[in-house]
Amino acid sequence: MNYINLGRSELNKEKDKMLKEYEELKGLNLKLNMARGKPSKEQVNLSRELLDIVNSRSDCSAQDEIDCLNYGILDGLPELKEIFAPVLGVNKEQIFVGGNSSLSMMFDVISFFMTSGVCGSEPWIKQEQIKFLCPCPGYDRHFAILKHFNIKAIPIIMTSTGPDIDTIENLVENDASIKGIWCVPKYSNPQGITYSDETVRRFSKLKPAAKDFRIFWDNAYAIHDLTEVPEKLLNIMTECEKNNSKDLPIIFCSTSKITFPGAGVAFLGASENNIKEIKKMYSFKTIGFDKINQLRHARYFKNYEGLISHMNKHRAILKPKFDIVVNTLKNEFADNKIISFTEPKGGYFVSVDVMNGCAKRVVDLCKKVGLILTEAGATFPNGIDKNDSNIRIAPSYPSIEELKTAMSVFCVCVKLAALEKVLEI
Amino acid sequence: MNYINLGRSELNKEKDKMLKEYEELKGLNLKLNMARGKPSKEQVNLSRELLDIVNSRSDCSAQDEIDCLNYGILDGLPELKEIFAPVLGVNKEQIFVGGNSSLSMMFDVISFFMTSGVCGSEPWIKQEQIKFLCPCPGYDRHFAILKHFNIKAIPIIMTSTGPDIDTIENLVENDASIKGIWCVPKYSNPQGITYSDETVRRFSKLKPAAKDFRIFWDNAYAIHDLTEVPEKLLNIMTECEKNNSKDLPIIFCSTSKITFPGAGVAFLGASENNIKEIKKMYSFKTIGFDKINQLRHARYFKNYEGLISHMNKHRAILKPKFDIVVNTLKNEFADNKIISFTEPKGGYFVSVDVMNGCAKRVVDLCKKVGLILTEAGATFPNGIDKNDSNIRIAPSYPSIEELKTAMSVFCVCVKLAALEKVLEI
Repeated sequence: MNYINLGRSELNKEKDKMLKEYEELKGLNLKLNMARGKPSKEQVNLSRELLDIVNSRSDCSAQDEIDCLNYGILDGLPELKEIFAPVLGVNKEQIFVGGNSSLSMMFDVISFFMTSGVCGSEPWIKQEQIKFLCPCPGYDRHFAILKHFNIKAIPIIMTSTGPDIDTIENLVENDASIKGIWCVPKYSNPQGITYSDETVRRFSKLKPAAKDFRIFWDNAYAIHDLTEVPEKLLNIMTECEKNNSKDLPIIFCSTSKITFPGAGVAFLGASENNIKEIKKMYSFKTIGFDKINQLRHARYFKNYEGLISHMNKHRAILKPKFDIVVNTLKNEFADNKIISFTEPKGGYFVSVDVMNGCAKRVVDLCKKVGLILTEAGATFPNGIDKNDSNIRIAPSYPSIEELKTAMSVFCVCVKLAALEKVLEI
Repeated sequence: MNYINLGRSELNKEKDKMLKEYEELKGLNLKLNMARGKPSKEQVNLSRELLDIVNSRSDCSAQDEIDCLNYGILDGLPELKEIFAPVLGVNKEQIFVGGNSSLSMMFDVISFFMTSGVCGSEPWIKQEQIKFLCPCPGYDRHFAILKHFNIKAIPIIMTSTGPDIDTIENLVENDASIKGIWCVPKYSNPQGITYSDETVRRFSKLKPAAKDFRIFWDNAYAIHDLTEVPEKLLNIMTECEKNNSKDLPIIFCSTSKITFPGAGVAFLGASENNIKEIKKMYSFKTIGFDKINQLRHARYFKNYEGLISHMNKHRAILKPKFDIVVNTLKNEFADNKIISFTEPKGGYFVSVDVMNGCAKRVVDLCKKVGLILTEAGATFPNGIDKNDSNIRIAPSYPSIEELKTAMSVFCVCVKLAALEKVLEI
């Protein structure tokens, strides 16, 4: 059935049918939260052995005789840097190992830049209104940081090869009030788009009008592949080295979606200049991060190969869930093109664009029958999706059965909202 | 022997003797770092069982069915709040549980206030030059935070009952550019002074000229007693409640000197208003702190009594070390009053005032024979001790034997520096 071809009375009939189906959904007494990209219990349990690795009988000395049970070492354990260097795509000297949250490190870095400037620049907060570029749809917590610091967010359209790089070049190279850009370069949140080689290259060739411009390269899903042959993201640091622009990118990742969400380890990769500056800032803030947890992670993974083999176990759990989402959408809307959606090869989300003006209504309809989705608009700065069409689906947390139910609910709500919309015109 | 009563030739003779002793010290090939208040291996090992408490077979649900292995809960586990409420001297609703570092939370709070203001005030960074009061000698890392944020530090003299409260009242109540004061109210760093009841009461009765003034109450040594009957610090929050000034204090503590330095848990206690504001700020910065480590700590201590009984084990290790420091100083300078020093009943330091103009020289002499002390001046803002007399001794880390050697070295260096000084006049 294709709504486009239906007359008003047929549409009304279809709407009545959907309303009936929707009423029946209420009987399910659903209570399912799919708002966030939260790993499932099954995924989290993959890492339980990590909890035994450092115990009361352990020798807690790390490389270079670092005593992990006591104070010291601001920038993290060398062995952990070694394991994560290929994830960040930088060398060991270009890594700062932090605490339990990469988001927190992004906030810190921006906060440092706000109050103290970037490698000698005027503090951002003392300059005229500064701006960040925000590829959209994107990650709501990135945008929230900008709001917190009163940094103006400029939306940038996402394409299948990454954010609109023509516009980015034009803005960054001509407007010195633009100080940064948020990027989730591999399996982007929420669309699952991996930036093309050309996009990465052009990022590395940027000649920013502002000396204190930085690329916030949140490689959150660097090794979070859903297929056996991962999509390849060009190494931005290597490209920047070629173009003498090593100070541009600040790269982030964490083990929150590898070991334990909120109890893992976060990493920052950047040029020696940037690392030196960021380390100096952190030296005022703390004596050091939790080295015992760093040691646990280093000993658990052993090496990069160990890390990747651990990720394969996540894939085995996640892939069937993404298949349910994508296949349900394909089946339900095969001949009724009222939505478009992505088929990500990794990451944590499926991005769905419903009919313009319907996203809020769909999320609301779902909520009323017990299915909590990410707030409509959340994937845009200040929560404003001017088309009101994008919805982020997070398939990881529910069980297979719950997810099947959730997707049925979602499809009914999408159709009902669409019918309401076309009938009101 | 009392230098005061000696003539020049006797002093010269004494100096030659000390020089000879000093030369002999070089032969010891000492390599001892006593710069920081760092718990010893023996102390750290007291908590090793903590590492086994949460393991691969554990049920990791905390109170209120909080899953510690996954995202969620910004302000920390309820059971841990319960254990530490009496340490902070606040109720459970007045606690925010953080990460591994209370210093980091102090930095964060000041950073939040700099960029976003205090409960609705103009951001500190947008106001004219703001100032903090700094009881001196004090904690170098407190002062470093001020330097980082370009906040002017105003030294306040410490007395045996706490910082000079007359001056504090006068300044805070008349100068709206004063926004805060650093306090280590129990067993202060480095003197080990516990604020008197009157001092605490007068803090609670402050009527600051600035609405956005806060007392940074770093109760780092709240339960770090060296005697069986601890010194009693009056509860500032209770006093503030009586005086309708609950929003004044922000209280900090951590388990860095209870369990593992740098791998423990930090706490913040404050009024409901302040907690609400600080929690809101943190909600932009992170999804949450490491709840697995919080769970370890809660299950390890079980309750407040468990915590205190754990501290008794620390006391048993620390007390003999403090005795060595204090007794050596008493014996060596019994009839030669060229120094004064504190005899703390808790905390991590002994504060020594050597002859004016000699502190740098003493620290330097010690360094040249392999004994690293806290940099002279470090206990004052910007590293400037205008008398050049205060030296902080940190007895915790060395073994008993090492400490005995270190104290011999220290005493020789103090005497040598003093002799140099009196002879140059």
